[in-house]
Amino acid sequence: MAEEVVLLDFWASPFGIRLRIALAEKGIKYERREEDLSNWNKSALLLQMNPVHKKVPVLIHNGKPVCESLIELQYVDEVWHGNGTAPLLPSDPYQRAIARFWADFADKKIIELEVKLWRTKGEEQARAKKEFIEALKLLEGELGDKTFFGGENLGFLDIALLSYYCWFYAYEKCAGFIVEAECPKLTAWAKRCMQRESVAKSVPHQQKVYEFVLHLKKVFGVE
Amino acid sequence: MAEEVVLLDFWASPFGIRLRIALAEKGIKYERREEDLSNWNKSALLLQMNPVHKKVPVLIHNGKPVCESLIELQYVDEVWHGNGTAPLLPSDPYQRAIARFWADFADKKIIELEVKLWRTKGEEQARAKKEFIEALKLLEGELGDKTFFGGENLGFLDIALLSYYCWFYAYEKCAGFIVEAECPKLTAWAKRCMQRESVAKSVPHQQKVYEFVLHLKKVFGVE
Repeated sequence: MAEEVVLLDFWASPFGIRLRIALAEKGIKYERREEDLSNWNKSALLLQMNPVHKKVPVLIHNGKPVCESLIELQYVDEVWHGNGTAPLLPSDPYQRAIARFWADFADKKIIELEVKLWRTKGEEQARAKKEFIEALKLLEGELGDKTFFGGENLGFLDIALLSYYCWFYAYEKCAGFIVEAECPKLTAWAKRCMQRESVAKSVPHQQKVYEFVLHLKKVFGVE
Repeated sequence: MAEEVVLLDFWASPFGIRLRIALAEKGIKYERREEDLSNWNKSALLLQMNPVHKKVPVLIHNGKPVCESLIELQYVDEVWHGNGTAPLLPSDPYQRAIARFWADFADKKIIELEVKLWRTKGEEQARAKKEFIEALKLLEGELGDKTFFGGENLGFLDIALLSYYCWFYAYEKCAGFIVEAECPKLTAWAKRCMQRESVAKSVPHQQKVYEFVLHLKKVFGVE
């Protein structure tokens, strides 16, 4: 069956990055359509395909949309299962629950904090920085001495967390800290991941993300 | 293999209700341990088993904890798969993504709004009420003319949404509206579900939940 796969995406979206990596890992050919979100323009197709949240990424598979990146990752894993590539989620139910737990944790905690890192100042920013580092240390603890969160293979949780990595430099510049000094093992993991072609070609350059954050600061009137 | 299943729970927790229904649907025997959350007391076991979020429900299976109710539901479905009971998630990847999408939607949208329904007044409450009804109508649209969200069988999304149902009466009393008048099909669905033993025995009485909300209002100084 001829597969038609379209990804509605925005280059800086951490959630879009997830789909780019997953589709590359699975060796799936797709058409990527860039949304003009720097200027808050949303295409008619995006509004039609994700009328509830109106957000990227949307994975359109044979005309049918799947929304919300972690759900899309699982969809990709389930549809393109056993096509000669490694599964993204572990096969063991407990390990699957653990991977889902930490991905969900990141989406609850990291997102809440990252906005504060570039949008606030003083005490509020200092509190966010402390909590952000604590959250990363929890993730580093979960990584332990493994090569990847998925063990020997890059998996669901690696992809979920990698999506945030290219934003770290911007947070460091805005809030005055160095992730590597706080979390050397997590940084080493990210660098290992970046050596994979699927990751390297999916992740925007950190300097470009930082310039985008400076644009956001200007738009939101943050000094 | 002898299974030891323990559920750390709190009677009024919408998320705990999900596990009660799922475990009943799957016919799994378990020990339910009630946490004293009316008084914000958390047991040492809860803090040990869910050190990140420190929240119920926690499903402890043979000594190992699984946290976050939607993740726990999937764990239950994957571990007790093919034990003669119907699967909770559909087998088709697209239908699975749809079920996950709406469960995630409810956990993002309903939770955000429900607190406002009992904790705010005036314009803020009116806005929350409007948005709450809009969210329910979206869910009603997804239900369509099906018996259950899961089709002929009560499934993952039914369980995810049912958990909120016993709180509706409290919101109605606090914010002055009738869900049935706004969403008759959704209400008929909930009543159908309540006829199932797995649901009826898992869901607290709406009057008791309302009294708990009155207790919360008092604690938080809401007139």
